[in-house]
Amino acid sequence: MSLIVQKYGGSSVADAESIKRVAKRIVQTRKAGNEVVVVVSAMGDTTDELMDLAHEVVPLPSGRELDMLLTAGERIAMALLAMSIKSLGVDARSYTGSQAGMITDAQHGSARIVDVTPGRVREALDEGAVAIVAGFQGFNRVTGDITTLGRGGSDTTAVALAAALKADVCEIYTDVDGIFTSDPRQVPSARKIDRITSEEMLELAAAGAKVLYIRAVEYARRHGVTLHVRSSFNNNEGTLVVNPVDGENSVEEPLIAGVAADLSQAKITVAGVPDIPGKAAQIFTIVASSNANIDMIVQNVSAAATGRTDISFTLPKTEGSATIAALEAQRESVGFEMLQYDDQIGKLSLVGAGMRTNAGVSAKLFTALFESGINIEMISTSEIRISVVTRADTINDAVRVVHSAFDLDGDTPAVVHGGTGR
Amino acid sequence: MSLIVQKYGGSSVADAESIKRVAKRIVQTRKAGNEVVVVVSAMGDTTDELMDLAHEVVPLPSGRELDMLLTAGERIAMALLAMSIKSLGVDARSYTGSQAGMITDAQHGSARIVDVTPGRVREALDEGAVAIVAGFQGFNRVTGDITTLGRGGSDTTAVALAAALKADVCEIYTDVDGIFTSDPRQVPSARKIDRITSEEMLELAAAGAKVLYIRAVEYARRHGVTLHVRSSFNNNEGTLVVNPVDGENSVEEPLIAGVAADLSQAKITVAGVPDIPGKAAQIFTIVASSNANIDMIVQNVSAAATGRTDISFTLPKTEGSATIAALEAQRESVGFEMLQYDDQIGKLSLVGAGMRTNAGVSAKLFTALFESGINIEMISTSEIRISVVTRADTINDAVRVVHSAFDLDGDTPAVVHGGTGR
Repeated sequence: MSLIVQKYGGSSVADAESIKRVAKRIVQTRKAGNEVVVVVSAMGDTTDELMDLAHEVVPLPSGRELDMLLTAGERIAMALLAMSIKSLGVDARSYTGSQAGMITDAQHGSARIVDVTPGRVREALDEGAVAIVAGFQGFNRVTGDITTLGRGGSDTTAVALAAALKADVCEIYTDVDGIFTSDPRQVPSARKIDRITSEEMLELAAAGAKVLYIRAVEYARRHGVTLHVRSSFNNNEGTLVVNPVDGENSVEEPLIAGVAADLSQAKITVAGVPDIPGKAAQIFTIVASSNANIDMIVQNVSAAATGRTDISFTLPKTEGSATIAALEAQRESVGFEMLQYDDQIGKLSLVGAGMRTNAGVSAKLFTALFESGINIEMISTSEIRISVVTRADTINDAVRVVHSAFDLDGDTPAVVHGGTGR
Repeated sequence: MSLIVQKYGGSSVADAESIKRVAKRIVQTRKAGNEVVVVVSAMGDTTDELMDLAHEVVPLPSGRELDMLLTAGERIAMALLAMSIKSLGVDARSYTGSQAGMITDAQHGSARIVDVTPGRVREALDEGAVAIVAGFQGFNRVTGDITTLGRGGSDTTAVALAAALKADVCEIYTDVDGIFTSDPRQVPSARKIDRITSEEMLELAAAGAKVLYIRAVEYARRHGVTLHVRSSFNNNEGTLVVNPVDGENSVEEPLIAGVAADLSQAKITVAGVPDIPGKAAQIFTIVASSNANIDMIVQNVSAAATGRTDISFTLPKTEGSATIAALEAQRESVGFEMLQYDDQIGKLSLVGAGMRTNAGVSAKLFTALFESGINIEMISTSEIRISVVTRADTINDAVRVVHSAFDLDGDTPAVVHGGTGR
């Protein structure tokens, strides 16, 4: 008997019909002799609707109360799913985050899991029932208050439960067939990846692949949880995200796992910075104080004549104005000449565990882009990833060119359904 | 400093604007120097919508899961209300039934309160915050499961908290100005009652007055909680429901408190029952087994020639078919000749603590009805109430006639807003 954790996103439980469809799938899994724990998100756009309601009442809602409000969404979905499963003759019980033992810190809106004590879930399984757990939510032991885990929270709930229950696999159901070599909406020839290491998945997620949240992948890697990303609309095998023992995979792993694009970033250039030690540290201390999530950083070579240099970095567009304001406030003490803000950039990332032992990858990437007339503005690399920044309007071409250059194109086009969960 | 419990029904928090209006009223009460605990129902039709959703998924939802689902409604309302109050500069914290210590038995859908341990609510008050508590919900200590209290549950939550916290008053906010001598929708000349005993209120609620639920009034009487029923749409004084010490009120209390009508009942007549001892007991044992809530019972005098008698009783229309089925199944063992079902009846009740010492009340009532040509089909009395059953289509005339006969008509017509809470 296997223990399977299944996570269904909001688009998989968007209405009564979808809930009944998902219930049938869960019942099949249970009747095949598995123990089943289900983590579910709020139905369709419920979370956005609740958020809108909060903003109708008050512009800046209290974090504690916003969490109390938003957690109503999963509560509705999980209760409906549990009653639907029961109506098919299989016992099912729904549990809130706190009932399922998702203990977090007290950071409302983006709480971190500090412990998982799924005693009631284990008990339900022992009694033959399917346990349905609300994704995205937990509670803090000190304050006794309800918390939410922030973006991608339901994925994280599923992985954390899988780790605590020592599940055989954690299935993440979504509206696409798995992880692709690139976004199928952008690159119709994108191929589904059958198997990918968590390390590669982490880089893909960080590079903008939206199917899995980076936080859930990190958690899975740290706790050795195997993920299976698959579609809730068919029975196809999806993508296995595995945690190979060191060295185990070096022989057969392909050079490149995939190509990701990210259009959510903006670039800030601090121009005319005095080229003296400590200035970069001063700038990024200011940036950090505005809570910006910096991605790439590039410092140009100093023009010897002026004794000044330019420092550029990328960050999410949503954090642009706060960061600009923080830097402007310190213009005199830093001594820079001007700030430039550019939100028309795109970032392309090439990810593959194989590239760490293959020096030719960057050259091939840069050549492919050059031959297509696409200009590279910034470059950053990790051991298994190369990212380049281009103009936003060239990013689609860039992804297709690179996808072909590395022989990633598949034979059958990918099937894509609408909507995204959380 | 007074401790005030305020309960707002669904129609008082139907949308963002209403929530902001209620928040202002709560802030006023707090700033006037009172400690404030607020019990809130789900917004507008939320509960009905959730119930519809459940029935889209499955015809007969599990009780445990239905409670889990429905409690999402109050959760949404209380979080929005708390954030609205906080935005007005007064600290506020929302608590679920279980966080507020509403301990119940495990009867899903109609749980009874077995204990109230409002430690966190008391703590919030001690720290100067307004405590917002979800009405209608509790939890069971043995199963650890969420429960709901059934119809009128939010009133009961408010009264139970008021009792446990030894509140000075429990204010029940609704869409009318208080308790009236009759339903203002039916009798435009109905007068608002300034003060009524809980005993009279209990009889009025049992007789069909819908402003307060009988269960909440019972709880208030048993625990000595003073209720103040008033409108959330204005600042008028409403109706005080008081618990006079024995004898205290006998002098000044008026003869009649009010007239109530109830069109929700049906009448079942078991005809041709053998007139031998034990038959009535047998019939009502059968009726009880179908969980019917019997109201009035009348047994006609036996016709000596036949040795048979007729027994009639009233019960809620919704329970009619189950009770008919239960009786039919036992026709042979009881030995009755036929069953008659009549759902075209109306019940008029005259309530007043003064009538227990005044023999002329029944005579005046029957005379008033007789002079208006309204036929009386059944009569039942308690110490402070007389109820009569008439045809349903004469009930409105009957209420007006009786209201006038007992000089209850006021000078100014009552103001009525739409909608009802729970």
